[in-house]
Amino acid sequence: MSDTPLSSLYRPSLTLLTDLYQLTMAYGYWRQGMQDREAVFHLYFRKAPFNGGYAVAAGLAYAVDWLENLRFSEEDLAYLGSLRGSKGGVMFEQGFLDYLRDLRFTCDVDAVAEGTVVFGNEPLMRIQGPLLQAQLVETALLTLVNFQTLIATKAARIREAVGPNDQILEFGLRRAQGFDGGLSATRAAYLGGADGTSNVLAGQQFGIPVRGTHAHSWVMAFEGEEEAFDKYADAFPDDSVFLVDTYDTLEGVRNAIKVAERLRERGHELGGIRLDSGDLTYLSVQARQLLDAAGFPKVRIVASNDLDEQLVTALKLEGARIDTWGIGTKLVTAYDQPALGGVYKLAAMKKADNSGWDYTIKLSEQLAKTSIPGILQIRRFYHDGKPVADMLYNSAEPLPEQLTIVDPLDPTRRRPVQTTKYRELLEPVFRQGKRVLELPTLAESRQRAREEVTSLDPSTRRFLNPHTYPVGLERGLHEFRTQLILEKRPQRPA
Amino acid sequence: MSDTPLSSLYRPSLTLLTDLYQLTMAYGYWRQGMQDREAVFHLYFRKAPFNGGYAVAAGLAYAVDWLENLRFSEEDLAYLGSLRGSKGGVMFEQGFLDYLRDLRFTCDVDAVAEGTVVFGNEPLMRIQGPLLQAQLVETALLTLVNFQTLIATKAARIREAVGPNDQILEFGLRRAQGFDGGLSATRAAYLGGADGTSNVLAGQQFGIPVRGTHAHSWVMAFEGEEEAFDKYADAFPDDSVFLVDTYDTLEGVRNAIKVAERLRERGHELGGIRLDSGDLTYLSVQARQLLDAAGFPKVRIVASNDLDEQLVTALKLEGARIDTWGIGTKLVTAYDQPALGGVYKLAAMKKADNSGWDYTIKLSEQLAKTSIPGILQIRRFYHDGKPVADMLYNSAEPLPEQLTIVDPLDPTRRRPVQTTKYRELLEPVFRQGKRVLELPTLAESRQRAREEVTSLDPSTRRFLNPHTYPVGLERGLHEFRTQLILEKRPQRPA
Repeated sequence: MSDTPLSSLYRPSLTLLTDLYQLTMAYGYWRQGMQDREAVFHLYFRKAPFNGGYAVAAGLAYAVDWLENLRFSEEDLAYLGSLRGSKGGVMFEQGFLDYLRDLRFTCDVDAVAEGTVVFGNEPLMRIQGPLLQAQLVETALLTLVNFQTLIATKAARIREAVGPNDQILEFGLRRAQGFDGGLSATRAAYLGGADGTSNVLAGQQFGIPVRGTHAHSWVMAFEGEEEAFDKYADAFPDDSVFLVDTYDTLEGVRNAIKVAERLRERGHELGGIRLDSGDLTYLSVQARQLLDAAGFPKVRIVASNDLDEQLVTALKLEGARIDTWGIGTKLVTAYDQPALGGVYKLAAMKKADNSGWDYTIKLSEQLAKTSIPGILQIRRFYHDGKPVADMLYNSAEPLPEQLTIVDPLDPTRRRPVQTTKYRELLEPVFRQGKRVLELPTLAESRQRAREEVTSLDPSTRRFLNPHTYPVGLERGLHEFRTQLILEKRPQRPA
Repeated sequence: MSDTPLSSLYRPSLTLLTDLYQLTMAYGYWRQGMQDREAVFHLYFRKAPFNGGYAVAAGLAYAVDWLENLRFSEEDLAYLGSLRGSKGGVMFEQGFLDYLRDLRFTCDVDAVAEGTVVFGNEPLMRIQGPLLQAQLVETALLTLVNFQTLIATKAARIREAVGPNDQILEFGLRRAQGFDGGLSATRAAYLGGADGTSNVLAGQQFGIPVRGTHAHSWVMAFEGEEEAFDKYADAFPDDSVFLVDTYDTLEGVRNAIKVAERLRERGHELGGIRLDSGDLTYLSVQARQLLDAAGFPKVRIVASNDLDEQLVTALKLEGARIDTWGIGTKLVTAYDQPALGGVYKLAAMKKADNSGWDYTIKLSEQLAKTSIPGILQIRRFYHDGKPVADMLYNSAEPLPEQLTIVDPLDPTRRRPVQTTKYRELLEPVFRQGKRVLELPTLAESRQRAREEVTSLDPSTRRFLNPHTYPVGLERGLHEFRTQLILEKRPQRPA
């Protein structure tokens, strides 16, 4: 088990896990003497995934680990020194490579804790520090945070579908996007709501409970199914779950019951059966009846077969008698939306004479894609212990006494803030490159995720057309942003 | 650059990259004394991804690396020894852990070379050897081969859409599924048809050409866009590609032209401009006109923004003037089908007395999901140098003189084989655990992929309702399989 998920598994330097343009821009800033101009970037997504009402932040532990190990090795520098431009000259001059050799991360980082519920436009991370460094880390932070946030959110939705009492086992490694696509997916799935995994490496690395049954091939390796179950029970008399659909599912259930009876004679109890194909509602109801009639009401019914939150919901509505859900491909790849569109945008730069901030904005034809300037903080307001609205504000400016939040997509929608209970979501993680936050354990983040999701109104949690949780800009920030857009946008005659 | 993609980057032992059930089955076989019974497994998918007509095999180099480093470390054994069953007893007894400590991979492995075009039901890998070992490797092989085959296929389709002359740059790292989801995706994308990548780690590890432009933040870090372009050109006078849509795209093109003119005065040429939002057809046509009119017909137009093969095809049809395609999220996550459903099925076991083979089959309600018994080889027949049909046959049985292939989904569809030109796709990779195959370089596999895809009939290569390339069972194998299904399926009265 490890608090340093990347560096314990991978060779120390993953500093080159980046897009080339981070390095070409770094080179450009270095040539202009701009490397140390103070800058502020925000990492955020614009829209919650899966047409859902929320996301669950995850991946910060990986991001912290990556930042703490940011260092260009001699091998890295040799590679960068070997790169050539189209005319055959070196891409980077030696002085820049020497600069990279000595580079140490000295930024401030503020981030939302893993397991926190977050919404579109809210910075999951804020990086403040020397422009070159704050830019350089973009790609790795996006890679590590985008994916785990996506999967933790998927797992939270699956937890909503199965309810609080059923078990969720994550079985997706074989269909994952590369092995780390499996490993980090397992971590995020557990954080978001899974109870266990088949992924042994994730068990070893993160202390996640590991679970498993057996494959069809186990049954095929014996003369008959009943013999196969007997032999498996011989190895795991108290922990057998028999896969019953190798030849015929209900015949398989009957064979499982025969073996369960022999187990009971020897003082053991069958753990469960697993359905992996066919009509899971019909088969689970039939299996439950057979098991109950034979005196095995506690034998669990595990089901798997391309399940996701929609299918689980349908099976529950149809009366399926499943109590343990094996969720694989659809969870670890977030099959219906396999990427979270997180972005990383420059929001402020210190003036060249260090006299104050210049705020920056990225325009777009779509207002939803226009960035938010400032040194942002998220304030979450509560009423009766429940979150009621979030406000993004520029923490470098004073706040008025009466707070008003403005919908960034429809500025005519405004709400005065009437509650005095709030919490600020971005908390200090690094100060001048030194980590100042003791990260929570994975179990703690998982607990937080569950509490956070259940604290949301059911209308925000539902799958179909969820209610939009209010996230607004503090009015002063909204007005400043509007002004900045008007300044930057070329005014064309109609 | 490395031929050992996993072990050079990751800590040596990734042996626990597996599902727990591989270990519980291993324990069961060991308890039954069945660990060394010879078994044959096939790794295959049932249906080409993206509703396409073919797939491009990839991932073998990773799989080989993983197999060559298969070894349980003391740390692994300590973890396995720490696992407990529901009654609190150890999951695995000490004798089994000692067995694992000494375990060395001794199987034979045959595989289809990376870059080969493959179809549903064709084994990409065949593992033959001691049952326990051949089962144990299932998960890792699936994880490593499923994903890279998926991405190489996606890249090959995008290559088909852009045509042979345009450039494809893979830009997906930030939205990849974990960092290895990015790294191995970049490898597979290059193998399948991309020309370069933004992913620096992939450049270092695999020698893939790295390319990049700059971010919007580069423009935002300066007073104005023109200044930003000037400063970038100062760093890369012969290799600048300007991102022109930070504030207003066509204004950005005009600014790029001003800087290109100044570059030319100093003896340099602007490389390109990049469009990253808006109507790419309209903007690329306008940009081309502006550039051409200003005397810059060779400045390339790079476009990006959630592109995939369908969108590229549409843009081409609409007359977009794009010559370099930046493809990110949709490529590295295979967005429209983010998992290949590869499976790993037991197909034969030596009889306990070693007197011959018992062939095994996994039944399913759907014939398409019923496995194929035998020790399979794929024979690809050619006519005039083009592949015309593939035959799966049991290499342990003699072949008749007149070959006939039978469609596994519709046995009334049969074809006599009339050509004598063929090649066998599965080639020896390991013999008794020792690697016997010198793996091709990534560049060679990439070359092979392109040749293989272009050797297919256009009707098989098209995106919409592609023609089904004929893959059949050798008639003897078909008849044997039918008999085995009838034997294994319980006969219920109608």
